[in-house]
Amino acid sequence: MAEKPKKPQKLRARLPRGLADRGPAEIAATRAMVEKIREVYERYGFEPVETPAMEYTDALGKFLPDQDRPNEGVFSFQDDDEQWISLRYDLTAPLARYVAENFDSLPKPYRSYREGYVYRNEKPGPGRFRQFMQFDADTVGSASPAADAEMCMMAADTMEELGIPRGSYVVKVNNRLLLDQVLDGFGFTDEEDANKRLTVLRAVDKLDRLGVDGVRQLLGAGRKDESGDFTKGAELTWDQIRFFEHTYFGFISEGRWMVPQTFDQHRPVFDMQADNQGRLFDNLAMARGLLESFPPGSHGYDGAGRLGEIILVCEAAGYGSNRIRIDPSVVRGLEYYTGPVYEVELTLETKDEKGRPVRFGSVGGGGRYDGLVSRFRGEPVPATGFSIGVSRLQAALTLLGKLDTKPAFGPVVVTVFGGEIADYQKMVATLRNANIRAELYLGNPKHSIGQQMKYADRRNAPCAIVQGSDERANGKIQIKDLILGAGLTEIKDREEYLRKQSEAQYEVDQDRLVEAVREVLARHEVKWH
Amino acid sequence: MAEKPKKPQKLRARLPRGLADRGPAEIAATRAMVEKIREVYERYGFEPVETPAMEYTDALGKFLPDQDRPNEGVFSFQDDDEQWISLRYDLTAPLARYVAENFDSLPKPYRSYREGYVYRNEKPGPGRFRQFMQFDADTVGSASPAADAEMCMMAADTMEELGIPRGSYVVKVNNRLLLDQVLDGFGFTDEEDANKRLTVLRAVDKLDRLGVDGVRQLLGAGRKDESGDFTKGAELTWDQIRFFEHTYFGFISEGRWMVPQTFDQHRPVFDMQADNQGRLFDNLAMARGLLESFPPGSHGYDGAGRLGEIILVCEAAGYGSNRIRIDPSVVRGLEYYTGPVYEVELTLETKDEKGRPVRFGSVGGGGRYDGLVSRFRGEPVPATGFSIGVSRLQAALTLLGKLDTKPAFGPVVVTVFGGEIADYQKMVATLRNANIRAELYLGNPKHSIGQQMKYADRRNAPCAIVQGSDERANGKIQIKDLILGAGLTEIKDREEYLRKQSEAQYEVDQDRLVEAVREVLARHEVKWH
Repeated sequence: MAEKPKKPQKLRARLPRGLADRGPAEIAATRAMVEKIREVYERYGFEPVETPAMEYTDALGKFLPDQDRPNEGVFSFQDDDEQWISLRYDLTAPLARYVAENFDSLPKPYRSYREGYVYRNEKPGPGRFRQFMQFDADTVGSASPAADAEMCMMAADTMEELGIPRGSYVVKVNNRLLLDQVLDGFGFTDEEDANKRLTVLRAVDKLDRLGVDGVRQLLGAGRKDESGDFTKGAELTWDQIRFFEHTYFGFISEGRWMVPQTFDQHRPVFDMQADNQGRLFDNLAMARGLLESFPPGSHGYDGAGRLGEIILVCEAAGYGSNRIRIDPSVVRGLEYYTGPVYEVELTLETKDEKGRPVRFGSVGGGGRYDGLVSRFRGEPVPATGFSIGVSRLQAALTLLGKLDTKPAFGPVVVTVFGGEIADYQKMVATLRNANIRAELYLGNPKHSIGQQMKYADRRNAPCAIVQGSDERANGKIQIKDLILGAGLTEIKDREEYLRKQSEAQYEVDQDRLVEAVREVLARHEVKWH
Repeated sequence: MAEKPKKPQKLRARLPRGLADRGPAEIAATRAMVEKIREVYERYGFEPVETPAMEYTDALGKFLPDQDRPNEGVFSFQDDDEQWISLRYDLTAPLARYVAENFDSLPKPYRSYREGYVYRNEKPGPGRFRQFMQFDADTVGSASPAADAEMCMMAADTMEELGIPRGSYVVKVNNRLLLDQVLDGFGFTDEEDANKRLTVLRAVDKLDRLGVDGVRQLLGAGRKDESGDFTKGAELTWDQIRFFEHTYFGFISEGRWMVPQTFDQHRPVFDMQADNQGRLFDNLAMARGLLESFPPGSHGYDGAGRLGEIILVCEAAGYGSNRIRIDPSVVRGLEYYTGPVYEVELTLETKDEKGRPVRFGSVGGGGRYDGLVSRFRGEPVPATGFSIGVSRLQAALTLLGKLDTKPAFGPVVVTVFGGEIADYQKMVATLRNANIRAELYLGNPKHSIGQQMKYADRRNAPCAIVQGSDERANGKIQIKDLILGAGLTEIKDREEYLRKQSEAQYEVDQDRLVEAVREVLARHEVKWH
C-alpha cells in the first residue's frame, strides 16, 4: 500500500530533555519562596551580589561529581579567541572568581548571597534537571567555626520561615576529615590516590540514593544502574573495603565508630545508638565521643574537634540537636569542600498522586572551601557557604501543600459586541488608569458573547463588561459578575436563581464603569498584589 | 640580564568580555524596576510564563541582525545526541516554541509576560553586553490592530511608571510594509533579494547610530567601522540607492515622502515637516497623508492603513502624539517582524561624568511577528509583542538619577572582644530572632576593636555592640551608634562633642540588647525592607 503524500515538514516544538517551562502558579510560588529566603539571609547580614551565567572554564574549575560524561557535567563553548567558556554549574565557583577579582575593594570577611539558575550537563532523570535554581550565602575570609555554625543555623531558620515545622527538617553537619581518617589507614598518597579518595567520597555521598550495597559496589569495581550505564568505582582492594566497612561505613550503617589505627587493630569506641532510655546521644556527647576516638593530631581528632566547636556555637545560640545534628554520613559530592560540610534534609514523608510514599531528602547543603579563592590569590582565603536547592525545595513544598498554588484572579475582560474597537479599548484604558487589571477581548471581534465569556472564564476573570448596540445608544454597560455567575448552576430554587442572576448581571451607566467594577472586586475581595 | 625566577602560576580571576558582575545597589535598582514593569504588564492583563535559558537551535531560528560572526550571534553547543542547543538570544523565539508546544491548553488570545537574561555572542563594546535582561509581553493569537496599539500604550505607561515624565520619551510606531513599498520598486523577487531586503532593513535600523552616511554605505558595498571591521552592504546599484534616497530615505532625513511608483516617476506627496505654526503633523494627519500617497492594494497602502488603525485605538484611549508617534525610520533589526514595529526612545539628554552629552535612544521595542509560531503549527498564528531592554533602561535611569542608588544600611555588627565566640553569637541570634539584621564579626577574633569598627563602617552598620571583660562581668554591653558617631568629627565645641559622644556610645544592661538596638534603629529611621 502506497503511503499518503506527506505534508510539508513542520518544525517540531519541543524542549531538550531536563529543561522545563514554568507557568503562573509555579512562578508565583518561586517568588514567594525566594522572598522568604532573602529575608532570612539578609537578617543574617548577607548582602546581594550577582555574577553572569557564564565564566571562563578554567575559572570555574572542575569540581562536579559527574565525570563520566564527555563535557564533565558542564555546558561549554569556545569564544572567538579560542578560550573556553562554561555555563556556571553552581553559584560558589563564580563567587570565588568574583571575590578574587575584587579582593581589595570588598569588606573582609565578605558576606554575600545570590540566587540564580545553574546548569548541569548531566543525564536528566525524574526530578533531575539540567537548569535549576539555587540560593546561596557565603562568608569569605573567615576561618571561624562560628561562620560554619551560622550556615547551619541559617539553614534551619530558612526552613522554618518557609513553613516547615521544627522536627520536620534536620540540618546535618559533618567534617570530611573524619572520612580522611579512614583513608589515612590505606596509606593514600599520590595523585591516583587523590582520585580514589574523591571516588570514595562520592560513593558515600550516594548512600541516600543507592543504599549500602550500591555504595559497596562503588567502593569496589563499580556499579551498573537500571539503565545499564556503568559508573566506575574506587577500585579499593577487598581488604580496604572490609576496613572501610568496619570503620566509617560501619558507623554510618550501624552507628558504631571504630578507631581505624591500623588494618588489623580497630576497636569500637563510640556508639551512636540510643542510650538505654532510647534517646539518641546529643551533639555534644557525640562530638566528645568522636574526639576521644582518635589520637591528637590525627585527621579524625581535628575533624571531631572542629565539629565540636561548631556545635558549641549552635547550642549557645539555642540551636540544639532537634535542629542541627552531627551526622558523619554527610560528605557532599562537590570536590572543593575542605572540611565541614552541611546538608539540610526534610524528614517529612508524604504520598505522591498514586499514593506511593515520597521521601524528600536533601534540599540544600554546603561546606567550607578554603582552597577555592586561594587558587586565584596564591594565599590562604578561608571560606564557607550554604546553598538552598530552590527548585528541589519548591517541588517538596508543593507536594506538602505548603505553597499557595490556587490560580490567581485574571483581569477584567471587556468584550467586543458590534461597536468600534477603539471605543471598547477606551473602557479598558479607563479601568487601567484606575489601576484595575483589564483587557480587551482581542480574539476575532465576530466571536459570540458566549465564546468571549468562555475566554473570560479561562482567564479566571472576576468580571466582564458587555456593551451591545442598545446599551451603547443609552450610555449603559452590562456588568457580569463571573464569580457569582459561576455559582448559579448550583441553585435549584427558581426564585433564588432569578434573584442571584440579577445580582450576577446588571446594567449600569457607562460613566460608572470604574465604580461598578470596584464593587465587584470588593464583593469578592479580589486582590491582585 | 637573567629574569627573576617566576612565581608558581596563579589562575587569573577575570570575566569574559561583555559580561559584568552586579553589586547590591544595582541589584536593588533592577528589582525595583522589574517590580514596576511587572505591575504595568499585569494591569494590562498579561500573565507570567518562564522558559529555560536554552532551546534547540532550530526552534529558536536565526533571526538575529549580526550574521557576520561564525556563531551568527548566538552561543551554541551540541548535546550528547548531537542536536544543537543555543542560549536564547531574545524572549520572543522561546515564547513562540512554548505557545506552539502548548497550543491546545492555552487560552487564546494568549497574553503573557516574562523577564530574564538573554545572551548574544556579539562583539562587545561600550554599553554592549553579551548577557542582558529583557522584560517582554506578547499577545499570541490576535490579528487585531488593538493588540498592536496596546503594546505601544503599555510601553508609554511603563516609562511613566518608571518615573520618566511625559514628553521625555516617545513610542515610535511604523509598519515595515512602508519599506517594502520602496523595495517593490526594485523588483526584488528571489531568495537573494530577500537577503538584500534584510540588509536594507538592518541598514535603516542603524540610522540612529551610524547617521545618514553610514546607512548609505550599508546600502551599497558596505562599511568599515572604527576598529577596521567590515560589514558587507546590501549591494544595491547606484540607481537603487538613489531611488531609495529619494523615497524612503528622503522621508527619514527630510520628512518628505515620495511615492515610489517607478524608478523615474516619483513625486513628493506627503511632507511631515511642521505646519506653518511650527507644529508637527499629528498622527492621524500623518496616517491619512501616507495612505493617500499609495495606490490601494500596494504594500504602502496596506501599511499606512494598518498604522492608521493602530493610531485610532491609541487616540481613543487618550494616547496622543505626545506619547505615541508614527515614525517610518523605525524598522527594528530582528528578521521575524512582519509588519507593525514599535520602539520606545528616551528623548531626554544628559551629561556623562566627563560632561559629554549622552543620548539614550531606544530602550525597548517590538512588533508583530505573524510567522514565528506558524513555523511550528503549519497554520497562521498572528502575534505581537513588546520588549523592554531592562539593562539598557537601567543604565539610562541611573544616569538620569531616577534610581535610588544610595547604599542601604548594613546589619548590626556584634564585635568580639576577649570572650567566648559562642556567647557573642548568642547575642547575634537574639537580635536575629527579634527580626533585626545582625552579624558576628567573623574576622580574626584577635583583631582590635578599631579594626572591627572599620569593618562595621565598611558594612554601613547602623550600630555595633561591644562587650569587654568588665562589661561581661557586670552583665552590660556597650552600644555604639555609628551614625551619630560618624558626625562627631565635625563637632568643634568640646562640650557638645562630649555630650554627643555620650549619646553615640553608652552602656546598657545586656538583657536590654534588643530594646537598645531598636532605639538606635528608630532614632535614624533605619528601614531594611
